Order: sequence, then structure tokens, then C-alpha cells
Amino acid sequence: MADKINVGMVGAAFMGKAHSVGYRDVAFAFPDVKLVPVMKEIAAATIEEAESARQVLGWERASEGWEKIVQAPDIQLIDVCTGNNLHKDIAVAAARAGKHVFCEKPMAMNVAECKEMIKAVEETGVVHMINFNYRRVPAVELAKQMIEEGAIGTPYHWRAVYLQDWIMDPKFPLVWRLKKELAGSGAHGDLNAHIIDLAHYLVGDIDSVCGLMKTFIKQRPELAATTGGLGAKAGETMGEVTVDDATLFLAKFANGAVGTFEATRFAGGNRNGNRFEINGSEGSIRFNLERLNELEYFDRRDKEGRQGWKTILVTDPVHPYMKGWWPAGHIIGWQHTFVHQIYNLMNGIADKKSPAPNFYDGLKCQAVLEAVEKSAETGQWVKVEV
Amino acid sequence: MADKINVGMVGAAFMGKAHSVGYRDVAFAFPDVKLVPVMKEIAAATIEEAESARQVLGWERASEGWEKIVQAPDIQLIDVCTGNNLHKDIAVAAARAGKHVFCEKPMAMNVAECKEMIKAVEETGVVHMINFNYRRVPAVELAKQMIEEGAIGTPYHWRAVYLQDWIMDPKFPLVWRLKKELAGSGAHGDLNAHIIDLAHYLVGDIDSVCGLMKTFIKQRPELAATTGGLGAKAGETMGEVTVDDATLFLAKFANGAVGTFEATRFAGGNRNGNRFEINGSEGSIRFNLERLNELEYFDRRDKEGRQGWKTILVTDPVHPYMKGWWPAGHIIGWQHTFVHQIYNLMNGIADKKSPAPNFYDGLKCQAVLEAVEKSAETGQWVKVEV
Amino acid sequence: MADKINVGMVGAAFMGKAHSVGYRDVAFAFPDVKLVPVMKEIAAATIEEAESARQVLGWERASEGWEKIVQAPDIQLIDVCTGNNLHKDIAVAAARAGKHVFCEKPMAMNVAECKEMIKAVEETGVVHMINFNYRRVPAVELAKQMIEEGAIGTPYHWRAVYLQDWIMDPKFPLVWRLKKELAGSGAHGDLNAHIIDLAHYLVGDIDSVCGLMKTFIKQRPELAATTGGLGAKAGETMGEVTVDDATLFLAKFANGAVGTFEATRFAGGNRNGNRFEINGSEGSIRFNLERLNELEYFDRRDKEGRQGWKTILVTDPVHPYMKGWWPAGHIIGWQHTFVHQIYNLMNGIADKKSPAPNFYDGLKCQAVLEAVEKSAETGQWVKVEV
Amino acid sequence: MADKINVGMVGAAFMGKAHSVGYRDVAFAFPDVKLVPVMKEIAAATIEEAESARQVLGWERASEGWEKIVQAPDIQLIDVCTGNNLHKDIAVAAARAGKHVFCEKPMAMNVAECKEMIKAVEETGVVHMINFNYRRVPAVELAKQMIEEGAIGTPYHWRAVYLQDWIMDPKFPLVWRLKKELAGSGAHGDLNAHIIDLAHYLVGDIDSVCGLMKTFIKQRPELAATTGGLGAKAGETMGEVTVDDATLFLAKFANGAVGTFEATRFAGGNRNGNRFEINGSEGSIRFNLERLNELEYFDRRDKEGRQGWKTILVTDPVHPYMKGWWPAGHIIGWQHTFVHQIYNLMNGIADKKSPAPNFYDGLKCQAVLEAVEKSAETGQWVKVEV
Repeated sequence: MADKINVGMVGAAFMGKAHSVGYRDVAFAFPDVKLVPVMKEIAAATIEEAESARQVLGWERASEGWEKIVQAPDIQLIDVCTGNNLHKDIAVAAARAGKHVFCEKPMAMNVAECKEMIKAVEETGVVHMINFNYRRVPAVELAKQMIEEGAIGTPYHWRAVYLQDWIMDPKFPLVWRLKKELAGSGAHGDLNAHIIDLAHYLVGDIDSVCGLMKTFIKQRPELAATTGGLGAKAGETMGEVTVDDATLFLAKFANGAVGTFEATRFAGGNRNGNRFEINGSEGSIRFNLERLNELEYFDRRDKEGRQGWKTILVTDPVHPYMKGWWPAGHIIGWQHTFVHQIYNLMNGIADKKSPAPNFYDGLKCQAVLEAVEKSAETGQWVKVEV
Repeated sequence: MADKINVGMVGAAFMGKAHSVGYRDVAFAFPDVKLVPVMKEIAAATIEEAESARQVLGWERASEGWEKIVQAPDIQLIDVCTGNNLHKDIAVAAARAGKHVFCEKPMAMNVAECKEMIKAVEETGVVHMINFNYRRVPAVELAKQMIEEGAIGTPYHWRAVYLQDWIMDPKFPLVWRLKKELAGSGAHGDLNAHIIDLAHYLVGDIDSVCGLMKTFIKQRPELAATTGGLGAKAGETMGEVTVDDATLFLAKFANGAVGTFEATRFAGGNRNGNRFEINGSEGSIRFNLERLNELEYFDRRDKEGRQGWKTILVTDPVHPYMKGWWPAGHIIGWQHTFVHQIYNLMNGIADKKSPAPNFYDGLKCQAVLEAVEKSAETGQWVKVEV
Repeated sequence: MADKINVGMVGAAFMGKAHSVGYRDVAFAFPDVKLVPVMKEIAAATIEEAESARQVLGWERASEGWEKIVQAPDIQLIDVCTGNNLHKDIAVAAARAGKHVFCEKPMAMNVAECKEMIKAVEETGVVHMINFNYRRVPAVELAKQMIEEGAIGTPYHWRAVYLQDWIMDPKFPLVWRLKKELAGSGAHGDLNAHIIDLAHYLVGDIDSVCGLMKTFIKQRPELAATTGGLGAKAGETMGEVTVDDATLFLAKFANGAVGTFEATRFAGGNRNGNRFEINGSEGSIRFNLERLNELEYFDRRDKEGRQGWKTILVTDPVHPYMKGWWPAGHIIGWQHTFVHQIYNLMNGIADKKSPAPNFYDGLKCQAVLEAVEKSAETGQWVKVEV
Repeated sequence: MADKINVGMVGAAFMGKAHSVGYRDVAFAFPDVKLVPVMKEIAAATIEEAESARQVLGWERASEGWEKIVQAPDIQLIDVCTGNNLHKDIAVAAARAGKHVFCEKPMAMNVAECKEMIKAVEETGVVHMINFNYRRVPAVELAKQMIEEGAIGTPYHWRAVYLQDWIMDPKFPLVWRLKKELAGSGAHGDLNAHIIDLAHYLVGDIDSVCGLMKTFIKQRPELAATTGGLGAKAGETMGEVTVDDATLFLAKFANGAVGTFEATRFAGGNRNGNRFEINGSEGSIRFNLERLNELEYFDRRDKEGRQGWKTILVTDPVHPYMKGWWPAGHIIGWQHTFVHQIYNLMNGIADKKSPAPNFYDGLKCQAVLEAVEKSAETGQWVKVEV
């Protein structure tokens, strides 16, 4: 039986729930995991919020604020799933206290913060990881395997969108995700962060970018209550939206490929449309998060007249992570990606190695985010510098 | 330059228009055709109808009734696209007059009529063909090629539906297709005829059947005017629907495969849903007429973890018939199947050989249709006898 | 905080794992559940198997055989997920011991066994339920809601298949599911049972049926080891396959609709293809388990020229069960249906009412299964008698 | 019976064949057309080429070069489907000779040439039209109708790609389309031209653009023979590719919407992937040329929980242009768009009015093409100036 590790989580909203699934299910799906997490403590802005989450999500104890939990002597891993503006402070404090750190994306508010975080983990030698969970969709992992096997050859094109529509109603209120001081950016940091990381993972480094940022609805009702997640209620006074509703950019990759990226919260009918296509000299690959159990592949080397897009239902036991779940054809959901992440994290801690995507990947992503912002301001191509 | 052949067509409605496309376009798409049709004469029930069709469809002359055209000395091929109740008389008269015969499906009202027709063509030695045009969809022809190459191995399952919805409105009137004395049967002869022929073509002979026939709307308004096609107008008195709205049956094939067939005009949302799937020991094939440029194929011999349904866009120059049309990716439509049929017919006449699907195929289809009708009456499995 | 109920589960294979997810996750997803299950004891054929499952699946204690657990004084609910041949004995014993019973489908080996089970639960007044979990797919529940709102009008057609392909390899061994004495039937009881229940749920009672049963591979290697699930290994001697590989049937519903059903384990490329389409006077509905987050709907009352199949991504908070999970567009998997079932079961026990699908639904399904078997033997239509 | 008009066509390759279908079929499909074209004369670079095309495509006479046909006294309409470098000279000469002009896209080599052409048609008063045939896909026309009815509200996003893959093989030779002096540009003028025109048609004017142009394969074999179309053969010496293989750009529309455009000939598996999606405040629309009979629509105003993407099969008689063809569900092909164009052209000439898309639309498109080229050179956003 594997050793155990005590986890402390900061943040109890949507992401807190999703991360909890990861800790809870990892040993159920993957009995070979090298370290079994114990859901020791959950912290939130208020003790009421923390206590309520504790009961529903299944943590042992609850606490208020983040300052105490990062010092708790019986905790070895801190999971950061607060608003973006707190990532750096919590992660640095946790690392300085000798805790391993698992942090939500985007890594921080800017490149400078990321570098501070990296300094802290390097100096203390703790294990670190960023929650770019879409790398751990079995279909995406299969894409990666196939690419490494040469399935697409030399990459020419990356074409990715992340389309959502949850704030299209002009009466939807000013939640924290729409305020620059709390979120850093809007669709850009929230959604482009994911597809930039996937591009890094599947195609390679981005050399330079040219983008535009757009806010369609410039004023919204202030929030009625003190907190508010995705289903928040509006109040009566109006406030300024200070982040982008949509950010689009072109990219040149270091290896010669070219790409398009688009993140928006104004694409009606696209609830969670994280989609990409890669075209290479030998083949092409397509993915759509709303059908995350499927991967499409076109092999240019197939016999003439027999070529076509093959839809692989990525649920066979031989597919990445699927041995842990159900027989072929019994699909998994979005939440399963968190279990896969935690599986990698646990094994990483056991092996004393920060598994990808780690803080270096988080920094690289942030550098692209920042270059796009600069390009949107200057109207010019901007070189990405890490 | 190829020799010419004069064509006379009987029938000027929907099918007359479609057949006309075949004659008009064959040499345009296929300059290698061995015989070039001349659209000499079109006949219809009234001279007005014939004349109007002549102008729009591009025939040289018009005539009334079918008796004269089948004797016209300058005509070598008679195309029969009247109501089903006239097929036999016209085809037999044409054959007896030494004309080649191209006949719409279903071949006739019953097996006995089919046999009379076969007797006539056998005795006179004319070329004969039945318009099961769906054999000549490039994707279906590709399926046939692949099956012959072993792509599916031993067939286990045939699963076909032909779903339409054009008479669901209870106020839709009693057109000829809803009267047994004119049509023979309803969805059964109209739609099952097609998928039975495809099953014969792609899987093999049917040994026995068990079916049911259903009429959902038993009375309908009589037609206001004398004639009426698919867009007919209703009058005020009500009349009896004497054909099936839907016919479903199970089948056992001679080679051990089993199948389901379903034809209906009451499947809302399915405008023209001719769809089939075949599963064999090595692979599976799927087709849908509403996306007739595509063929889906699953190869069980693909590497583990890389298996999936491949959607082949059947528009490459190497695909059946496609060299005659456009560059890859420029799709063709339903009407093109008629051009392909006529291409085969012209070459067959030039070679003095009745190309499949010919009257023997028509008879075989009729025998299955009739066995299903008998099964529906007796509530028992019925062996198909040709 | 809700009261708790102690659960004892018999069976520790594939279904044991799936049921465990239901008990484990119900209060996490649905904090309003009226009774919270405690995973008290798991029993299996051997203590080793039970102990191993206990650890991985998270039960408190393990035991051997089913006779003791059904008498355990601290257990109030018995979950039966053994082979079909044991369902009746366990369920009757559990009911006689005053335990509520949750039983896998098909309910039993035949109608007579079902009636014994019903007698037991009626006499003891315990709550009972059958695991037709596909009723609890949110998209299926939405279909039910829409049908009740009149979305399809009078039903005309039911068209369902349940296609799998996991035993196509002739070397796949003789697992218990291929032996009549253990499984009762093959694809029929395993797969048709599901789509018969869905037809009952969505269309109505079946009046009479006509079917065929087919075994494509008649001999297979005996199992190397004593037990074997879906991934079993083959031995060297050959044994007789005594169940159907595929069962197809036509049905007449009491309300005048007609239907086709097909269950097979020989449909290559269909890993878990539970699919149905219903056509009614006002609209049509389509579902595919391999894309279980989607429901397709066609409304014949839509404006002319604006009609089409609408693909509803059934992940909005207003959709059935989805409030318990994630924001819109974050899909769920197959396992979630078990959580929904357990949610209903817990509330049913709290309310002292057996929630549908219960033993009466199980019996009704079994009656259809049996009528089809009789029809396949006699070659005639058979009336369904409960 | 409508009056006739004599047509002279310059160019006898792929586009010549497609245009010929338009003239040949227009009165067959649309008997109400106001002017019936007579296919009088076809001209090509050599008389052999012209004569061969004459026979196959069905023109009355053949001639060499373009200078004579534009002066032919019995011709009233000149159809220009040569290489792009000749468009201007032919169109101007034809207009100066008093002929109406129908010209392939892109309109010319640059904005200056377009302006010369406009000067000529304005001074002579002839009717002019550009062959942006994708406006006349019934599904696209339906999209236009729906947008005008308010189906999408205020447009936010335009997202279009035109993906092909026919020159991915590095051994594919240097055909005229890969030489700047003959084609002007590569994928940009060939493919972006189409989606720019669609954006103008469906969203509105483009204010400014930022783009990149990429040539993946910089050297290719020179053509073996003097001419070569899509299926050309390679010779032995190598030559420089002087056009783009792919051009991508971002756009800001005058009305506040933002857009992405991508044209490439290096997207393996995409034979002819002209696809777009528009998101507006009330709804969204999607189109894919490879499934040109379908239009997808999402209505944000649909009832909560009943929202979804509706796939409209655009083959009903009430759909644009479809009354001319077949019953619902009998799909049309790519070639039909040419018939629709010629229908509009004929009616335009009869009404003495240049139907859209005419030379002004061609110029507007060219201005965007040119602005993108400038942006690709300077690395900056460029304002579009007409």
C-alpha cells in the first residue's frame, strides 16, 4: 500500500470542487499511484465558506484565509485555486514553508510574478505543477503520443479557439473574472492560457505574436452580494469591465509553423468550445473539448482513395489513463482530467520531480499572454521573451 | 466521336426530369462514353404535359400516350418513368418493338409482371436496365469496391433504413403513390425497393423475411386536380389510403448474415434518409444519402488504440465516376447518380450487354418485396422465391 | 444533515465498481439527497476478491459469498450486482431479511423468477429498484420531459440499436456472459434489456414482437482461469457458446407505434452504441450513448425553411441532474448515471416508495425478452404477457 | 419564351467547365429566367484547346486568343475565366466593345487594375458581375436571409478558414497559380478572396487588418509541359515559388465585430474546407462548403434548456434556389452554385442592372487582399482603403 500525503487546499469555489475530485478519485481509478492524498484541510476567504465546502467536498478540517494553512505542520502539499491575484503570494509562502505546490492556471498576474514563484520553488526544492488539465484529456495525450510517433510529420498549422458564451447577457454582473485587478485579464488569461499551453505541448515554442483584445460590453451591473461565481446575481449600480471579452492573435512558432488563437466569452452556442486542429506534412489532428472522448486524425500516407478523417473513440483500455476507468465505449467526463493530473502530481512528488506542466510551463505561457497584450497595445508583432 | 442513339422517354414528372439530366450530361462528364444519347422524344399522358416538359427538359419532340412512342421507327431506347402500374405494358411493348429498355424502380406491380418483362427482353434480345440509381453514388460504388477487396470480411449485419417525412401532414392528399392500384405499395415499393437492391449488391441474396406493414393515416383528402406529384394540393372529399405508410422487416441472408430494413414516410426530420451500415468480421461500413459524398469505414485490423471510423470524402479523382466531375472537395449532388447510370447504360448498349442492375436484379428485388407483403399478412417468416 | 443508511453490495466486478461510484459521489454532487449511503460491506465469491475490491472501491469491510451479507443486522440496503443467475436468490433472501434491494439488470433469468422477486418485496414492503441506469442519462431524462410536454406528439416509430463489438475475435473465451446457465441469454438480456426499458419509458407498452436470435461464433476457447470479466484470457479447450451473439426484433406498441430493436456484440467499430430515434406526429428525438451529453431534436412545428435537427448539449444547470455537476459545457461521463440512480434510490428509500425503474419495470422488460425468445423459436409473432 | 443572349467565354480550363454548366442548366432549372444564354463561342490560348473544350462543354464555335472574341459582333456577354493576370485587359476590352462582363475572382492583380475595370464599365454602361459563387450556395443565401431577419443580432465574431491540401506534396510542380506574375498571390487571392467576400456579404465592411503570409515549400519542379491545371505533371528543373502557401489575418470590422481569416493549401485532409462561423448578440451561424447543403444555426433566444445548434438541411422548396431542383432531401452539388450565379446574371442583364457581387464588390475584396499583403510586409495593422 502506497504512502500518504496530506493536502491543504486554498479556494473553495468551482475549481476547489474540481480539484477535490482529483484527490478523492485518484486511488480508486489508479491503485498503482505512488502516493495517496489525504484531503486534510480546506481554506477559504471566510470560515463559513470553508466549512460548507469541507462538508460537501469531503475535507477533514476547514480554516479561514490562506496564511495559516500554508504553515500547517501536518500538510505537505498546498493546492492553490483562488483568484489569480493571490496565486503568487500563496505559492511563494507555501514553497518557503517547504510545501509542494499545485497551482491553478494562469500561473499569476504577469511574468514578473511567475519568476518570483519559480525563484521560491527553486530555492526550496519543492515539487511544483500548474493545472493545465487539458493536457491530461486522454484524447489530447493520445494526440501527443501520435505526434511523437510521427503521425503528423513537420507541423505547418496550429488553429485553436476557446469559445464560451456565459457572459453574453449584458445584465450578467461584474464578477471577479471581469476585473483586471483580480483576474489580470479576461478571456485571454482564462481561455487563451489553455490553448497556448496545448500549443506548447503539441507544436512547440512560440516565437512572436500579433493580437487584438476586445471588450464588447463595457459596463455591467455591480455584483449584488460580496462573492459570486459563474451563476452570480446582478445588483443595481453599474461598473466598468476592465478585462477583454475576446482576445485573438496570430503566432509564428520557432519551428516555422504558423498559428491562430482565439479566446472569447461571446460565441453564442459554444458552451465550452476548446477546439484545435494541427496540420503537418504527414497528417492532421483535430480535437473538441465538448466531445473530449474523441480524437480525429487524418493520415496523408493512407492509400489514395482511402484517405479520410478517422474519429478515434479514446476509451479503449490501451488509451492513456483509460485502464483506470471503464470498458471501451463508456465515456468519461471533464472531471476525470483532474484525476489524471493528480495522478501525475502524486507520482511526481513520490519521485521528487516536478511533472509537466510545471512552473516553467506556466511561465512560458504567461510570457505569450503578456506579449499578446503588448501587441494589442502597440499594433505590432511582438517577440515572446521568457 | 462516339455514335449516337435516339432516346424516347415516357413520363414527364419528377423522374422524367432526373432521367433527362442523365442523358443531357453524360457526354459532358464522360467524353469516353461509347454511345451518345440524343433526347429525341418525350411522351406524357397529355400532349400539354409532354410539350411543356419538352421545352424545359430539352427534348426534340413531344407526344401523347405511350403506345406510339414505343413504335417510333427512329427511336432505339425507351425510358420508362411512369407510374408503376404502366411499367410492364410499356416495357414489354418496347422490347417487342426491338427497343432497349431503361425502367424506373420498382420494376413492376408484382413478380408475375416482372417475369413477363423478362420474357419479352429475353425473346427480343434487347438491352435492359432498372434505375436503382443509388448503386451509382460514388460512395456506394466505393463501398462495393472495398467489400470486394475484403475490407469488411465475412458480413454479419446489414442495417438499413429509408426514412422520409413528406406525407406526415394528415391533409396531404391522396396522390397516385398512395393508391394500391397505381403504386402497388407505398413506402415499401418506393423506398424498401432501394435498400433491398443495395443489400443484394453489397451483402448478397436474401433467404427469408419477416415483416409488418403499417398505415398511420387511413383517410386523406382526394386530389383537387387530375394529377399531382410531390407538391400536390388537396380537395374536399376524403378517400382511403390503400398502401403502407411504413414497412419494416427482418431478413436472413443466404450467407448467414442478418438484417433489418425499414421504409417509412413518417419519420419527421428525415427528408431523404437512405442510410445503411454493414458489419463484417474485418470491418464496417456506413452510408447516408443526405451526405452522399461521404463514406464511413471502420477497419478492425487497424492497430490497437488507433482504430476509428474514417470518413472518406468521396470526391477524389480516383474515386468511382469522380474523374468526370470536379477537383477533390467539390461535392456532387443527387442528380449526378443519373448521369452515372446513363453512362453505364450507354456503354451496355454499345457492348450489347445489359448492365447491372438489370431486369434480373429488378425481379429479385420484387420477390423480396412480395415475400415481405406475404409475411405481413400471415405473421410468419416467408422464404424468398424468385 | 441527512440520515445515513448502510449498504451491502454483492458482486465486485465491473458493475460493482460502477455502483460504488454511485454511493461514493451522491452526496458530493447532490447535497440535498435525503439519505446518505455508507459503504459498509462488499461481498464476492471469494474473500480475496472481496478484500481487494474493498480496498480499491472504498468499502468498510469484505465478506465471502452472499448468504451472510443479506442477513447482516447493520445493513439496510442490499445491492445485487452478481451474474444474472444469482439475482433472484439474493434479492428474495435480502427482501425476506427486511433489506431494501437494488438489483442489476436484467432482473432475473426469466419471468417466473421476476415474479418470485416481486412476491418477496410486496410481502415485506421493502423498497426495490432495477438498475436501468440509462433512464438517468440527463439527455434521456430531458427526452422524457420533452415528450411529456408534447414535443413529439403521437409516437409513430421507435428505432433502437445497442451495438457492441467486444467478442468479435473468435479467440475471445467463453466468459460467463456467453453461457446460458449463468447469463440467461447473450446480447439479448444484456443489451436489448436496456433498449426495451427505454422504449417502455419513452414510448409505452409493447403489445407483440417478432424476432430472430443468432450466434455467429458457435465455439470458443474455455476460460483459462476460474473467473473472467471483459478482458478475460483464453485457454486451450473449446466449449459451446450457448447464448445469442445478436438478437433483432420488430415490435408493435399498444399505442399503435411500431419499432425495431437490435442488440449485437458483432458490430465492429461500435464500442457501446446504444442509440435510438423516435418519430412522432410533431417531432423526432435521437440519442447516442457514445455522445451521451447530447440530445437531438427535430420540431415539425418550426417555421417552414427553418426546420432542422437541433443538437442540445445537455450540460446546462437547468438540465436534469446537471446542477449537481459542473458549469455548462463541461461534460459528464457514463459513470455519472450511477450517481443519479443512487440519488433516486436514496430519496425513494427515505420516502418509502420504490422509484422507477423498479421491479415492476424489470418484470415488464423480462416479459418482452421472453416473448422475443419464443418468437425466435416459433418463427411467429408473439404477444407479450406480463 | 424569354429572349436569348449570345455568350462568349475566354478560358477553357476548370473554371470554363464550371461556368459552362451555369449557362447550360439555367433555363432547365429556372424556366422563369428573363434571358436565355446561348453558348456561342469559346476562346482559349490555342485553337486546339478551344476546339476540344467546345466539343465537350457544348459551345457552338471555338477561337484562339482573347482579342477577337471580345470584338465579335454577335456576342453580347463576355465571360472571363482565364488566369488572373489577363482579367483586366479582357474585361476592359470587352466593356469598351459594349459587351457585358462576367469575371472570375479575384477581380484582378491589384486595386489599380480593378479601378481601371470599373472605369471601363462605368463609361460604357455595361452590366458587370464577379464570380463569388459561394454567395449563391442556398445555405449561404439562407444565412443572409436569416441575418437580415435578425437571427444573429449585432455581430461580434467572424471566424473563417478556407483550407485545402492539393499542393502539399513537395514534388507538385510550379503551375501558374504558384507564380506571382500570373496569379498575383497564392492561397490569399485564390481562397481568402472568397471568405473576404462572404464576410462583406454577411457581416459588413472591414476597417483594418493585420496578417502574415507564409510559403512552406520554397522551390518546386518546373512544369514538364507548357500548361498545367490542378493535376499537372512535374519536370526536372527546380523553380522558385513566388506566392504564399498560406495567409492568415485578423480583422476589425467597421461595425465593431472582430474576425479571423485563414487561407492555406497545406491543411492535410481538408480538400475544400471553406468554413465560417458568425456569433452575434442573438444567435450564431456555421457553414462548411464540404457539406454545402447544410446550415447550422443557434438561437440564443430559444427557451432555456432547449437551446442547441440546429442543422438545417437546405433542400426544401422554400429554400433559396431550391424550387428549381429536386424534392426535399435530394442534395445538390458544388456546380449548382454556377447555375444560380448565371440566373442572377441573366436577370441582371435583362433588367440592365449589375447584380451583386459586381465590380464594386470585387474592388472592395481586392482592397482587403492588398491591405493584408501590406501588413504582412510591414508587421503592422493596415487600414483598408477603397
